[in-house]
Amino acid sequence: MITIKGIIGLIMSQIDEDNQRAVISLGIGDPTVYSCFTTSHVAEEAVAHALSSAKFNGYAPTQGLPQTRMAIAEYLSRDLPYKLTMDDVFVTSGCTNAIDIALCILARPNANILVPRPGFPIYQLCATFRHIEIRQFNLVPTKGWEVDLDSVQALADENTVAIVVINPGNPCGNVYSYQHLLRIAEIAKKLGIVVIADEVYGHLAFGKNPFVPMGTFGSIAPVLTLGSLSKRWLVPGWRLGWLAVTDPTCIFKQPKVHITFLLKSILKVMERLKNFFDIYGGPPTFVQAAVPQILEKTDDVFFDKNIYILKQTSQSCFEGINKIPCLSCPQKPEGSMAVMVKLNLSILKDINDDIDFCFKLAKEESVVILPGVAVGMKDWLRITFAVEPASLEEAIRRINSFCHKHSCQPDRDI
Amino acid sequence: MITIKGIIGLIMSQIDEDNQRAVISLGIGDPTVYSCFTTSHVAEEAVAHALSSAKFNGYAPTQGLPQTRMAIAEYLSRDLPYKLTMDDVFVTSGCTNAIDIALCILARPNANILVPRPGFPIYQLCATFRHIEIRQFNLVPTKGWEVDLDSVQALADENTVAIVVINPGNPCGNVYSYQHLLRIAEIAKKLGIVVIADEVYGHLAFGKNPFVPMGTFGSIAPVLTLGSLSKRWLVPGWRLGWLAVTDPTCIFKQPKVHITFLLKSILKVMERLKNFFDIYGGPPTFVQAAVPQILEKTDDVFFDKNIYILKQTSQSCFEGINKIPCLSCPQKPEGSMAVMVKLNLSILKDINDDIDFCFKLAKEESVVILPGVAVGMKDWLRITFAVEPASLEEAIRRINSFCHKHSCQPDRDI
Repeated sequence: MITIKGIIGLIMSQIDEDNQRAVISLGIGDPTVYSCFTTSHVAEEAVAHALSSAKFNGYAPTQGLPQTRMAIAEYLSRDLPYKLTMDDVFVTSGCTNAIDIALCILARPNANILVPRPGFPIYQLCATFRHIEIRQFNLVPTKGWEVDLDSVQALADENTVAIVVINPGNPCGNVYSYQHLLRIAEIAKKLGIVVIADEVYGHLAFGKNPFVPMGTFGSIAPVLTLGSLSKRWLVPGWRLGWLAVTDPTCIFKQPKVHITFLLKSILKVMERLKNFFDIYGGPPTFVQAAVPQILEKTDDVFFDKNIYILKQTSQSCFEGINKIPCLSCPQKPEGSMAVMVKLNLSILKDINDDIDFCFKLAKEESVVILPGVAVGMKDWLRITFAVEPASLEEAIRRINSFCHKHSCQPDRDI
Repeated sequence: MITIKGIIGLIMSQIDEDNQRAVISLGIGDPTVYSCFTTSHVAEEAVAHALSSAKFNGYAPTQGLPQTRMAIAEYLSRDLPYKLTMDDVFVTSGCTNAIDIALCILARPNANILVPRPGFPIYQLCATFRHIEIRQFNLVPTKGWEVDLDSVQALADENTVAIVVINPGNPCGNVYSYQHLLRIAEIAKKLGIVVIADEVYGHLAFGKNPFVPMGTFGSIAPVLTLGSLSKRWLVPGWRLGWLAVTDPTCIFKQPKVHITFLLKSILKVMERLKNFFDIYGGPPTFVQAAVPQILEKTDDVFFDKNIYILKQTSQSCFEGINKIPCLSCPQKPEGSMAVMVKLNLSILKDINDDIDFCFKLAKEESVVILPGVAVGMKDWLRITFAVEPASLEEAIRRINSFCHKHSCQPDRDI
């Protein structure tokens, strides 16, 4: 089984230890190694305060502290046409755990779920552990990585239980329009399936489309919204995520009214959710206790600064990459922290594929990027631009030099 | 499905809100609500320091920070006849998560595991989610809650993959002797199965038997040792646990040498462990980063104080309960934080069973205890004695008064 961390580990191992140059990783979406991406004082102090109070060393209720669930419900409701309550929210150990829980509660014999290609390999791994079949629909690079809606309908059958929508997009850096999300919801309704909305990059949008939560369309098809503090607050290591049932028409609670959804055997979703959380302790109580402060008190200046930096780095990444002849970026990134780049192997003399490219690049230039095959797109690359601007520029210089060295016609190409 | 928290929630709901008396809970093993059970300054400061350093906001390696794994390996090795390395240790979100992972990696079609009765219902819940059959062997109250080894052998078949040993014991408060653990290991060897050693109460022993880790016998049968900071450091809400492969003869790594274990299809345990951790983020990085300090620098005075209090409260619980005619405690608790108490219904006039007892006790006396059925023993009770001495005395007074009120012959009984 392929994991991003597994592949990055292999690529890192290519780098000579006595290498003189600093390693630059554009491989994993963890910006915290760069000083320009530090979390807010509000967040850090909220956790420190909850810890030192010694009030939160004991168990939290299995589904999360009530004040935490309430704060997350309010936070998500700010952008929805209806109000979530704390009963709709479950606190998880980061978004990965929320993915696993979403799949677990939807699992049943012969079930399959529809996931995007390129996508996020954790879905595949979780599905394997939960005995769910994965079916991949395409995202269309020439259409801003929109979902190929025809292929979604062709893939679905009576055992399909859910479609995964990652927005803002990882690995593509796209942000879907209101209209496109609406069309996805309508197809989900037609198919009688749940939408799993992976919004771990929620609000990290800096292009023409604003971030619209999938839950906006929860009355068309029920949505399991997954999110976390990780990306927007720059604390992926805090493992504080959530799963919110954005289902204003209560299909999960009163399945008998909705015969289509009933047929999919998802009637027990709420019950299974509660059972699942009983076997699982959630994130540390004192981190949960900090969440209301974090969600309510973080200054917009903090968010604006991060959006500004990401907009700058995404732009310089896009422009820099498109100046390298063997690479092309079909779509300027407008959200999240990563972008997909197409590799033109025909103008490289001794590179077999995306994996070969990444291994040699690491060895020769100490730059780490993720081969596209890890996210389902052979001979593409995923580049993370949530990197300090100077490091990003240096990395692109080295990638350029690498491509030049391996070009069939080095003099013409560069 | 029964969970301790679920049942305790139902019992709590019996208590009138306008009740004048403080609710005393002897229901869940979370001593942190009492001021006499606060964690050490070393632990709190280690976490605060890691948080404020801002060095640990990013992802940790999926199996845990190397320094954390190394510190846990050293901590566990202090009591073993061999040395564990960091490769043997995986950092988990508390012991519950370690239980789930242990079952997950041992799961295969038709697999069953042997669990103690009375036991800990999380095993049953996790097994259900992992499609593993549970088979219960008895612990013998008249023999210090030792494992009924004959019933273990009778229950096992070719699909049995593991036996669970909880020591120090929850819910019985027993601590197994070296000899008894050795015999369990020998039976596991004979059956070709793995021992899951749940040592979440490790070192909380205050009777005649010292705490002996099951890993001591890892060369007889491979052991998956589960533990956490929760109980010994009084921080169940921190969710910092571990799973250690205590397998000095490397059965998990070189399964072909050991044909018996190979037959059980556990040859891929190490591989499955690594895959599993890839889909799962572990506890917060900054909490992990605090673990080396916590394990190395906690003063013995802290441990001694807690052992002293637990010894006192366990003794006063044992003596107080045994003075109540309808209750009897077959075995003085010598470890952990709970004890099993037998209910003699024949001398109570209007109590149907253990659940009825606990519901009425909550309603009439605002004392919460766990009905034995939650841990597999109908008409028994589980009482947690990790409670402030004054509250424990008051609770026992109320239980006594309750039993008196419901006795067939109130004048003679009390």
